[in-house]
Amino acid sequence: MSLDEAITKPHERLASLLESDMGKVNALIRDRMASKHAPRIPEVTAHLVDAGGKRLRPLLTLAAAKLCGYDGPYHVHLAATVEFIHTATLLHDDVVDESAKRRGRPTANLLWDNKSSVLVGDYLFARSFQLMTETGSLVVLRILSDAAATIAEGEVLQMTAAQDLATTEDIYLQVVRGKTAALFSAATQVGGVIADRPENEVQALFDYGDALGISFQIVDDLLDYWGSESTGKNIGDDFRERKLTLPLIKAIAAADEEERAFWSRVIEKGDQRDGDLEHAVLLLNKHDALEATRRDALEWSAKAKTAMQSLPASDLRDLLIDLSDYVVARVS
Amino acid sequence: MSLDEAITKPHERLASLLESDMGKVNALIRDRMASKHAPRIPEVTAHLVDAGGKRLRPLLTLAAAKLCGYDGPYHVHLAATVEFIHTATLLHDDVVDESAKRRGRPTANLLWDNKSSVLVGDYLFARSFQLMTETGSLVVLRILSDAAATIAEGEVLQMTAAQDLATTEDIYLQVVRGKTAALFSAATQVGGVIADRPENEVQALFDYGDALGISFQIVDDLLDYWGSESTGKNIGDDFRERKLTLPLIKAIAAADEEERAFWSRVIEKGDQRDGDLEHAVLLLNKHDALEATRRDALEWSAKAKTAMQSLPASDLRDLLIDLSDYVVARVS
Repeated sequence: MSLDEAITKPHERLASLLESDMGKVNALIRDRMASKHAPRIPEVTAHLVDAGGKRLRPLLTLAAAKLCGYDGPYHVHLAATVEFIHTATLLHDDVVDESAKRRGRPTANLLWDNKSSVLVGDYLFARSFQLMTETGSLVVLRILSDAAATIAEGEVLQMTAAQDLATTEDIYLQVVRGKTAALFSAATQVGGVIADRPENEVQALFDYGDALGISFQIVDDLLDYWGSESTGKNIGDDFRERKLTLPLIKAIAAADEEERAFWSRVIEKGDQRDGDLEHAVLLLNKHDALEATRRDALEWSAKAKTAMQSLPASDLRDLLIDLSDYVVARVS
Repeated sequence: MSLDEAITKPHERLASLLESDMGKVNALIRDRMASKHAPRIPEVTAHLVDAGGKRLRPLLTLAAAKLCGYDGPYHVHLAATVEFIHTATLLHDDVVDESAKRRGRPTANLLWDNKSSVLVGDYLFARSFQLMTETGSLVVLRILSDAAATIAEGEVLQMTAAQDLATTEDIYLQVVRGKTAALFSAATQVGGVIADRPENEVQALFDYGDALGISFQIVDDLLDYWGSESTGKNIGDDFRERKLTLPLIKAIAAADEEERAFWSRVIEKGDQRDGDLEHAVLLLNKHDALEATRRDALEWSAKAKTAMQSLPASDLRDLLIDLSDYVVARVS
């Protein structure tokens, strides 16, 4: 690894390596999110699509397709598809209820009302299905419609499991697959499918995306109790929103009666007082929950790496391996 | 036509004729809306899916497929698909903003919060795409993903065009296609596609569904100013919600300066006073707007009939022709 490579983040190297294809993806996104009849649509999406996010999901699709030697035009359609699904999901996440607003939840839809978020999100979902249909691959359609169902199911599960102390690590994993990993794994898998690669390679691409997404989300949930200025996360947001993330689930599983009463008060009943967050962190440390969560994140990162290593060697493959390391670098 | 047929409504005769297939559709719907992980999903959908609506859209798909001599299994999948899309649309329509609630809009989502309506709707959309993918027909996928985009675009257009006096009949037609006709036409068209019928017959099935949906919606909008106890509609709901439906659009196009000021006050500004509805109806009659709207509804109904008459004769065909008459019977 050159010095340049060492100091450049893997997703930035990926973006630079795939710049030309990504330009085509951005052009396709702009073209397909336009609506000659309803100008509100590009207005709402522009601030999401043009904001210049990391575009990690479409990059994963482009990388997987290129890694598999694909030379057709449809990796661009599929990359735009996963970005549309991601953007639609963000818009629908923006929909809030008054009760949620009152709890001080940050409302990303202040600019737009609930109705716009829902309908424009629906438009992007429909557009994404048009795009994937254009690839003419029924396998791709099956993978992406399954991913869409997993995403929606995971979101519903998260909503109903929230504030329920009985939430298990299995349920957490399902929520995480819905929130993050299902679209990551579909993004990488379809790259192998359109390149017509053998089943074991397609499976390895799925496993990589799945494990990458899970480790990414676990790290994110961990940093909510372990953050610092350098990670750019505020400690305690999830706690205040009473989210049952992996560190809490582990600590609650090991809780004695008095501790369960504490968790029940602050999470189930939402009766939070000064000093509760500090006490929660104390309990997390007492039961080694943060360290155990960190080990889980590293394990999923290692699974991603192993899956990717089973694919034929290439610079792009090594870059995706670096990416799986990078995701957990903040807690390594 | 026997006496029995004359006194039984066409959609009831359709339901009775297709009872066995419709049983399969209902079983498939129950099976696919289940979620082993998120019991909230069937809870939310049950009151929509089990409520025993007319199931008009899936009946249209079953009828079109049978009319075309289809003998495979996938008409059941497609009928469930269109019902899922319809139900998802209803759930997303339920999402409201506080401002809307304050205006006294009937909130169908009182039972469930906005978030549940959005996420469960998304789940049904995803399930519908899984179902249509199972048919293995890329043409079907193209038709239904196009319909989904038209529906979402029409809903956004309706939201942005609402309360805008510049709304034209063209825009109204697009909104109506989004709200109603796009799913009707897709429902009938895919029945011909899976039966592998020639292009002109598939087009006739599309035209029938399109025109049936448009006449259905125009009648609905007309009855809001022309209702009576026998039609089961309350007069003036659309007026109070400041919806620019066809009767208003026609009256506004013919308005003099004083009348425009009236429409601007009650629709654009929403400043409605006692007697305004009566004055609006007076203006609608003055410009013959209700009668002109009625003629439009009859014209679309006639188009539906003509399209259906181009198909090979059968009892089922005649029943669909009766249905196009029935839709406008309330204003004939």
